[in-house]
Amino acid sequence: MSLLSVREALSGAGREGQEVTVRGWVRTRRDSKAGLSFVNLSDGSCFSPIQIVAPADLPNYESEVKRLTSGCGVIATGTLVPSQGQGQAFEMQASAIEVVGWVEDPETYPIQPKPHSLEFLREVAHLRPRTNLFGAVTRIRHCLSQAVHRFFHENGYYWISTPIITTSDAEGAGQMFRVSTLDLANLPRTDKGAVDFSRDFFGKETFLTVSGQLNVEAFCLSLSKVYTFGPTFRAENSHTTRHLAEFWMVEPEIAFADLVENANVAEAFLKYLFRAVLDERADDMAFIAERVQKDAISRLEAFIDAPFERIDYSDAVSLLQKSGHKFDFPVEWGLDLQTEHERWLTEQHVGRPVVVMNYPEHIKAFYMRLNDDGRTVAAMDVLAPGIGEIIGGSQREERLDVLDKRMAQFGLDPAHYGWYRDFRRYGTVPHAGFGLGFERLVVYVCGLSNIRDAIAYPRAPGSAEF
Amino acid sequence: MSLLSVREALSGAGREGQEVTVRGWVRTRRDSKAGLSFVNLSDGSCFSPIQIVAPADLPNYESEVKRLTSGCGVIATGTLVPSQGQGQAFEMQASAIEVVGWVEDPETYPIQPKPHSLEFLREVAHLRPRTNLFGAVTRIRHCLSQAVHRFFHENGYYWISTPIITTSDAEGAGQMFRVSTLDLANLPRTDKGAVDFSRDFFGKETFLTVSGQLNVEAFCLSLSKVYTFGPTFRAENSHTTRHLAEFWMVEPEIAFADLVENANVAEAFLKYLFRAVLDERADDMAFIAERVQKDAISRLEAFIDAPFERIDYSDAVSLLQKSGHKFDFPVEWGLDLQTEHERWLTEQHVGRPVVVMNYPEHIKAFYMRLNDDGRTVAAMDVLAPGIGEIIGGSQREERLDVLDKRMAQFGLDPAHYGWYRDFRRYGTVPHAGFGLGFERLVVYVCGLSNIRDAIAYPRAPGSAEF
Repeated sequence: MSLLSVREALSGAGREGQEVTVRGWVRTRRDSKAGLSFVNLSDGSCFSPIQIVAPADLPNYESEVKRLTSGCGVIATGTLVPSQGQGQAFEMQASAIEVVGWVEDPETYPIQPKPHSLEFLREVAHLRPRTNLFGAVTRIRHCLSQAVHRFFHENGYYWISTPIITTSDAEGAGQMFRVSTLDLANLPRTDKGAVDFSRDFFGKETFLTVSGQLNVEAFCLSLSKVYTFGPTFRAENSHTTRHLAEFWMVEPEIAFADLVENANVAEAFLKYLFRAVLDERADDMAFIAERVQKDAISRLEAFIDAPFERIDYSDAVSLLQKSGHKFDFPVEWGLDLQTEHERWLTEQHVGRPVVVMNYPEHIKAFYMRLNDDGRTVAAMDVLAPGIGEIIGGSQREERLDVLDKRMAQFGLDPAHYGWYRDFRRYGTVPHAGFGLGFERLVVYVCGLSNIRDAIAYPRAPGSAEF
Repeated sequence: MSLLSVREALSGAGREGQEVTVRGWVRTRRDSKAGLSFVNLSDGSCFSPIQIVAPADLPNYESEVKRLTSGCGVIATGTLVPSQGQGQAFEMQASAIEVVGWVEDPETYPIQPKPHSLEFLREVAHLRPRTNLFGAVTRIRHCLSQAVHRFFHENGYYWISTPIITTSDAEGAGQMFRVSTLDLANLPRTDKGAVDFSRDFFGKETFLTVSGQLNVEAFCLSLSKVYTFGPTFRAENSHTTRHLAEFWMVEPEIAFADLVENANVAEAFLKYLFRAVLDERADDMAFIAERVQKDAISRLEAFIDAPFERIDYSDAVSLLQKSGHKFDFPVEWGLDLQTEHERWLTEQHVGRPVVVMNYPEHIKAFYMRLNDDGRTVAAMDVLAPGIGEIIGGSQREERLDVLDKRMAQFGLDPAHYGWYRDFRRYGTVPHAGFGLGFERLVVYVCGLSNIRDAIAYPRAPGSAEF
């Protein structure tokens, strides 16, 4: 007996006419008038289920096979034969079907073989990977995560796991989650009545990180090319379809790199990821293109084929002002670009991805390198049709005296950034990096509109778990 | 001009006699009486630095090259020539050396070219990757993390990112970190005076996860083979050299698997990881074997070559009782095995890795599958010479009625485990999985004894960051 995944069985796996075993969950059962049943079995190994032909002479045909419903766990043994059915090379002529797990009450089983709303599926997040859509999303997300690691590994980067519990705030802004073991019912107090954080687990106030960038910068000044890929947290009460409180970020950091090289790496990186999805998840992407987003495949192909445009922020502002397009938000040098502006640039003006570079210094973070003009910093945003901003990055301010001035300007306490300042005293070199929100990438590739559909367990307002 | 990594340059990269550029940080400088200098330059791309031969006729020879100290950031251009030096194929005859970053005060630069204590290096965690040891640890950790993803990918597993912020406690025990955005100075209260968590960010009490296992189990019942690789948290105030508050865990979960298959996967997995380290990080492992742990390489080779022994817990207790060895802790059926017992089994008795299986049910977690004897569960611990327990796992209790009894026995509230109970009603099948603490693995491979030396940033007591 050879055990095959459904993916292997569907391909024949060189075992035509041989007896093999597959295991999985029933998608559908159809009984033919000829006295046999067709059971579609899925194990998640690929998009398609395999068709199991169950003849009436199976000993448990009447007692079990004909009672199979969607979701039942089954082990099927039989012969692989070429399939007459569309889209699959092989099917199985069953010689034995063992039912391992019944569905307790088929009538109330949430995942019926019919379309479900995404809202409904968020409520049954532990079961939604059994649907076509969330099986596909999970495999695509996996493919993208593997491609992230592979791209950096192949290009000589080292993965660094930066601290999740932290005392510093990378952006100098943004609401953070507090992490504590203090007993809220009985908070320790200092003499002056303040909460005494010296009694907390780490002896000081701690939070969930908003970014691993500041930490990974130090590693880049030893190992040249490094990246993080881990969870980050924002406690912003913006319950939109574009924001999560908990999300994974990819943050490469490159020594001796300037903004031009940074943009080149970002372009190569995104193209590598999309190439991987098209090559490795053609089955799932075909479903996405058929049912979710018509141009899901063609837009990735266009993305891979197109050289990204580079536009200076100042030029972008001029272009927007001269566009004749009526925007809701004002366009003026010194103001940040809004989504409508970004989309016009990438979708209307250029028609392919654009890297906007060198933003006004006062609208960007303190760690971005001040350009020689004194009014812009070496920051970049990568904008793409259909999604808008997908990557943000910058060359970092490696000059300690300039950094200190920038921190003073932003009202940041240098004492909070001791080691961040410190490593700039020791052989500091130009360096640059960028950040990619992983779930936003997944949502884009899968043609979804709500970021909660990109994660394993949606954390909707009012529920930490789902 | 061709830009090469030090790793590429050291190998010659097919560019003998050609002009190339390397970039990195000075390890040492030595001036010869012949009027030239030897600068060892490291960029982290491999263990060895490259020797740069700087002739006196460089325009900045007196003014800059002769002032280079450890840690300076340098761009060196020159010709690759075969090296007379030991252990490297090529060195560079420099035609230009550009100093990009000076060390502000070489006298006080913490990373001098001499041995440092690990304790000292934990205090300068942002600089310690510039040492031989922590460069090696970082590359080995990277290699292991890539191998984790690759092993599962090649074997048809999907990566699942389970929630970090959670409401449930996977183990039913252990101190958790609270996650909150409530204002501690002004806590909202219910009518009865209790803290009103309905006003917290998620509308309920939330914590940092201790394990992704319960979540990933649901995915395994859709996609058959899945794994997590992400941070987990324990707020236990045990400041030992073996425990971290924040650590990464690898947790595969396999549908249709029993304990025997679980152990087989664990064995194949560990061997794959160690094979990867020996193949891909031979340079760093040679250093570890020379300076840190003499048998670092040979013990991994032995680990790969040896078939793991399987011993039933009950038999292990008999063996320990008959051993004639005097243990500090009592050996008796029903008591958990202590480290001294585990080490005797794997190091003295078997002399290679051992999987101990089927532990008494009352000393293991509620979710482990009750065996037919009614007194043991299908749990396993993988023990290995030199480290002790490295993997813990179990077949899961897939029978809802048995699970409910176990939860009652452990005093757990079924309401807290709604979805975990729920998916067992829908086509539940046998499934099993295990957990591997990633930092413990790194510490073992690198021959270190303090787990804080396995992570990028040690989180010592009294400091969340370092």
